[in-house]
Amino acid sequence: MKFVFITAVALGAISWGLFELATKPVAAAQEPGAQSSAVFDAQGKLKLPDPHVFRRWVFVGAPLTPNGLNNGHANFPEYHHVYVEAKNVDAYLKTGSFPEGTVIVKELTRVLDPTFPDGSRAEPSGRGFFNGEYNGIDVTVKDSKRFAKTNGWGFFTFGHHPLPYAEAAAEAPATECAFCHQANVAKTDMTWVQFYPLLRDKDPLK
Amino acid sequence: MKFVFITAVALGAISWGLFELATKPVAAAQEPGAQSSAVFDAQGKLKLPDPHVFRRWVFVGAPLTPNGLNNGHANFPEYHHVYVEAKNVDAYLKTGSFPEGTVIVKELTRVLDPTFPDGSRAEPSGRGFFNGEYNGIDVTVKDSKRFAKTNGWGFFTFGHHPLPYAEAAAEAPATECAFCHQANVAKTDMTWVQFYPLLRDKDPLK
Repeated sequence: MKFVFITAVALGAISWGLFELATKPVAAAQEPGAQSSAVFDAQGKLKLPDPHVFRRWVFVGAPLTPNGLNNGHANFPEYHHVYVEAKNVDAYLKTGSFPEGTVIVKELTRVLDPTFPDGSRAEPSGRGFFNGEYNGIDVTVKDSKRFAKTNGWGFFTFGHHPLPYAEAAAEAPATECAFCHQANVAKTDMTWVQFYPLLRDKDPLK
Repeated sequence: MKFVFITAVALGAISWGLFELATKPVAAAQEPGAQSSAVFDAQGKLKLPDPHVFRRWVFVGAPLTPNGLNNGHANFPEYHHVYVEAKNVDAYLKTGSFPEGTVIVKELTRVLDPTFPDGSRAEPSGRGFFNGEYNGIDVTVKDSKRFAKTNGWGFFTFGHHPLPYAEAAAEAPATECAFCHQANVAKTDMTWVQFYPLLRDKDPLK
């Protein structure tokens, strides 16, 4: 009888522990700035963010620099789809700056085969541009200590070409990415907020 | 002793029940087609989906038909940002069709003021197009019974103009929206999957 009693108490304790385990991680994951999704390897390279994950983050804008309008070779060919985690979007909307650990992903896609020299094509919805294949990833990570020399953000490129992307990337030299952000968007937390309606216009309803 | 034993067993059962409760809703919410986000009013009009909500759904593509390339008046001015709920994206990737109740939102934005006749402008990243202000919403809802006459999808427009959008919309006549989907994309569940890399290319990693 004593054994059964102890077993029952133990079962109670174990299942309460399971309940705690099952509920706690959900709450923690939603706390703003609780954890960065940036993962660095032993050499200090940033690991490729998982496309299955970041393609489900909040989309903030799609600048488009077609090869056809950039002498055949755009610096970023061609659509730039920009994604930010929801918790960091919320923090930006509240405070005007991104929390430490924020990761911003820019995934490129080609445009579908053009029928005009400017890169556009005719479709039932009109003449314009339409997303072709995935074509590269650039990532920025906010870490004021690690990237103090470049206004608190590190810049990484995993290649501007079709899949597969590089699995890890070393920090890009400041002359390659950071200089342009420092020159143009230092006042908006090093991010091109002026191209992202949700952030720029504060997620407007009216 | 007997009382304590029963109490201990009961505690075990209760905490096991709490564990079940804590874990089950997460699974249920991810079941494809569990619930539609479409809300109709008493007159059968579709209520405007909440922008704060759908702008956090999964972004699938950004066709762009600039006014500058469409005689100054594109049918859809100008960026089309297309969003689908994650559970419905997952179902599409698994089955090749969308569950009953799926809502697809296309929110338009203008392009930032152009400096060239085609609608493009020069920015540090190159010559191209950049998201201006929000400029309209079109929505499709899958309901094979309600919209049987138009291949199972209803089409709604909340205006192609700056905010505020209409608060509710009646189903658009088939000659306005559905005919074009029926003529061009009946084989891909009435949706322009060929312009949405995540859906078209099956969310590729490699």
